[in-house]
Amino acid sequence: MLTIGEKTFRSRLMLGTGKYPSFAVQKEAVAASETEILTFAVRRMDIFDKDEPNLLEELDLEKYSLLPNTAGAKTAEEAVRIARLARASGLCDMIKVEVIGCDKTLLPDPFETMKASVQLLEEGFTVLTYTSDDVVLAKRLEEAGIHAIMPGASPIGSGRGIINEMNLQFIIEQSEIPVIVDAGIGSPKDAAHAMELGADGVLLNTAVSGAEDPVKMAEAMKLAIQAGRLGYEAGRIEKKEYGIQSSPESGLVT
Amino acid sequence: MLTIGEKTFRSRLMLGTGKYPSFAVQKEAVAASETEILTFAVRRMDIFDKDEPNLLEELDLEKYSLLPNTAGAKTAEEAVRIARLARASGLCDMIKVEVIGCDKTLLPDPFETMKASVQLLEEGFTVLTYTSDDVVLAKRLEEAGIHAIMPGASPIGSGRGIINEMNLQFIIEQSEIPVIVDAGIGSPKDAAHAMELGADGVLLNTAVSGAEDPVKMAEAMKLAIQAGRLGYEAGRIEKKEYGIQSSPESGLVT
Amino acid sequence: MLTIGEKTFRSRLMLGTGKYPSFAVQKEAVAASETEILTFAVRRMDIFDKDEPNLLEELDLEKYSLLPNTAGAKTAEEAVRIARLARASGLCDMIKVEVIGCDKTLLPDPFETMKASVQLLEEGFTVLTYTSDDVVLAKRLEEAGIHAIMPGASPIGSGRGIINEMNLQFIIEQSEIPVIVDAGIGSPKDAAHAMELGADGVLLNTAVSGAEDPVKMAEAMKLAIQAGRLGYEAGRIEKKEYGIQSSPESGLVT
Amino acid sequence: MLTIGEKTFRSRLMLGTGKYPSFAVQKEAVAASETEILTFAVRRMDIFDKDEPNLLEELDLEKYSLLPNTAGAKTAEEAVRIARLARASGLCDMIKVEVIGCDKTLLPDPFETMKASVQLLEEGFTVLTYTSDDVVLAKRLEEAGIHAIMPGASPIGSGRGIINEMNLQFIIEQSEIPVIVDAGIGSPKDAAHAMELGADGVLLNTAVSGAEDPVKMAEAMKLAIQAGRLGYEAGRIEKKEYGIQSSPESGLVT
Repeated sequence: MLTIGEKTFRSRLMLGTGKYPSFAVQKEAVAASETEILTFAVRRMDIFDKDEPNLLEELDLEKYSLLPNTAGAKTAEEAVRIARLARASGLCDMIKVEVIGCDKTLLPDPFETMKASVQLLEEGFTVLTYTSDDVVLAKRLEEAGIHAIMPGASPIGSGRGIINEMNLQFIIEQSEIPVIVDAGIGSPKDAAHAMELGADGVLLNTAVSGAEDPVKMAEAMKLAIQAGRLGYEAGRIEKKEYGIQSSPESGLVT
Repeated sequence: MLTIGEKTFRSRLMLGTGKYPSFAVQKEAVAASETEILTFAVRRMDIFDKDEPNLLEELDLEKYSLLPNTAGAKTAEEAVRIARLARASGLCDMIKVEVIGCDKTLLPDPFETMKASVQLLEEGFTVLTYTSDDVVLAKRLEEAGIHAIMPGASPIGSGRGIINEMNLQFIIEQSEIPVIVDAGIGSPKDAAHAMELGADGVLLNTAVSGAEDPVKMAEAMKLAIQAGRLGYEAGRIEKKEYGIQSSPESGLVT
Repeated sequence: MLTIGEKTFRSRLMLGTGKYPSFAVQKEAVAASETEILTFAVRRMDIFDKDEPNLLEELDLEKYSLLPNTAGAKTAEEAVRIARLARASGLCDMIKVEVIGCDKTLLPDPFETMKASVQLLEEGFTVLTYTSDDVVLAKRLEEAGIHAIMPGASPIGSGRGIINEMNLQFIIEQSEIPVIVDAGIGSPKDAAHAMELGADGVLLNTAVSGAEDPVKMAEAMKLAIQAGRLGYEAGRIEKKEYGIQSSPESGLVT
Repeated sequence: MLTIGEKTFRSRLMLGTGKYPSFAVQKEAVAASETEILTFAVRRMDIFDKDEPNLLEELDLEKYSLLPNTAGAKTAEEAVRIARLARASGLCDMIKVEVIGCDKTLLPDPFETMKASVQLLEEGFTVLTYTSDDVVLAKRLEEAGIHAIMPGASPIGSGRGIINEMNLQFIIEQSEIPVIVDAGIGSPKDAAHAMELGADGVLLNTAVSGAEDPVKMAEAMKLAIQAGRLGYEAGRIEKKEYGIQSSPESGLVT
């Protein structure tokens, strides 16, 4: 079970809601993923526009926790403003803080990210913070009181998977809050990889919405996250330099 | 569905039967894996010894196809002799050809492997051949008529996972027979990885039998193989150099 | 030529002065490396203790620029104090800012690192800042006015080499100040790798001082850095998925 | 010193002669590389055509050993025929056996490679055999009596560098004949990498001839191979999981 702030979830997959081919496909993919947490960019959803069809209206909101994010913010100030907008809409009081520091790579800004997180904590939000895989930055964010840390595997939407396994391991080892690997997941093995390292969950979007068959990929991700979690709990074998026979040497038929 | 020779299987996981902590754990792990194919070293199972308890007796053999292997053979001659022994026992006529060429690394001998495969094909066996990830060797074995090719991810029992993704990709691209990635799988992400490359199945043993909790790991592997297969079928996103926003740029709330 | 602040260097190798087996070996290794910049921990060199033999006294200081570092500092305040101590000794006014945020991994603290860098810039130092490979952090440090950015390849003394090539590439692409890859270099190939990415220099210590033969390794590093730089300037071939014949197809002898 | 058959060389770089922008550039690159062994495709050099300008005529052949190769051969028979042609030309009696088994990947055929090597050994050639990185195949070729084994780092001309470090390590550990890493080298770090693993030499072509500045890249490769060799001899530090301070803890200035 994954606990963030005061809520508890059976699923360890958080699913983004951007760029699906259609609402119908998205709805089916969301169902196939068995996610309980949907994340969306506040700036990009017409959440107050009653004239437009809208995923959130299509879904049975009782079944999902909503995790609005501050995507599009380049400063703490913008992020805070977006978060307040999300809260005002009455949708939820969880927020994913995302403050981009570089338009080319979409990598996050450590200083503005910290500033926004601190401000939103003061305002009573449940704060999940998207960050690089900088180990000490993650530690400082945790010390500031955030509710979950969301280090990136690789740049948003890049599908490159986990580049620096070591940093994620260090972050997981040091953290007493949930670690949700966010950004860069490209395929099921990447999601399983994050979970095997001991992550508490995975957030992904493009890997599903951009797949040829998003519904099938959503199911694949659901299974991969379960597989990775079970693999973590089961305690994997150590890597060895040379081959080791899988059968005992004694009692050979000769 | 996985078809090898004349048989068809729903599961794409082949499970080895070596070195489990106990028969009870093994039985439970086999069940959790939902495998339909069990592999065992002919030389190491007392298949004719009626006085000893034996996994094969414990299992409901109706439910499983047995894939005896020639582990322990260092020459084609030995491998052929072991295969004939397996057939004589009446257990099955499928055989996994495994001829080790190096005691230190347990890597296979290409020449003896080919020789044994050819001989056993002539004798009417359904032949699945364990090999290195040498691309042209795999092609030549296929041309010789084997029924499935089993390239190693890394040395037997090493748990190092897939070292040379490129070679496995090349083998999968060129093969018209099933490709079963065999040896070296260490964790669920490795199994998912093999399947995402387009492998038809995975064979593993130590990753499950040597895990702290073999039953849980067996379930993890089952899910990982399903996840990897679905991910392959779903068509993953391409890897990109820079970050790409997961939400559309238009219609922003400002 | 490498230019940092107002100084220009022919060598692109900065060499640390810790943990050599003896002064004699160190002196010979320094010579073999042909470095022009020696870095040392202010807190760990008895720079005022006239009774102890001391590398700095042994060397012809006319030949070297000294780069004292703030190793051992865990806060900006400590780093600033150490830097002032270095300046007071009259040895130099360049300083390598190093503020560790985690005793276990020795990874740097982004906030204290920034704070110390800003303060020392205000005090007129030529500031070279050791940092993680966080891309936006590097950008912010450059915007703050530092004279060179020193991202780590992997943790100090780990010898793991470059873990996240992408981040180093991004930092190099965005930087208009020199990028010196610092920490984690384990062998010549790692140093060549950093230079091929377009780094302006490499700082290393343990890879030389901890080698079985530090003098020979110092020479190896010198050559590797030259090789990597030349390789960068020469413009390497692109990576290709499949093989490409190195000889023309036409005019074959048949 | 590198000894192959009865010849000894100071340089550990073998340079291919295909696809340079011009003879002038090639000549200069060859000089910059300080190679002593030039390899060329017998089928692709008009070695008997007196009307065409020709690299071999341009060079001072006293300074170089020539290593003709059987590139273009797809069977042992073709390779043997090409080798005899090379010998008949009086150029040399060393031969690099290269028998390609796959047009798409240009990877070698293990069976035809072995057959050609054995035949040419019987005919008294000094045989250097290009092969995949299959460990037992390399062993069997050595047992057959070849004079040097040339495992590929990755496919010919791909510039992908060393994909399977483990296999090269195993081949180097087991070999008592020289190991020359051949094919796939893309940049100086790759060449250094091969040498650090303990290879006796490196053969490359496209990485130099296809570089933007082949002369500069030739020099880079020369230095990289020296650096890698020295690094191997110097005994590198072990990789460590966590950071290790490069300066002693005692005697701190506080």
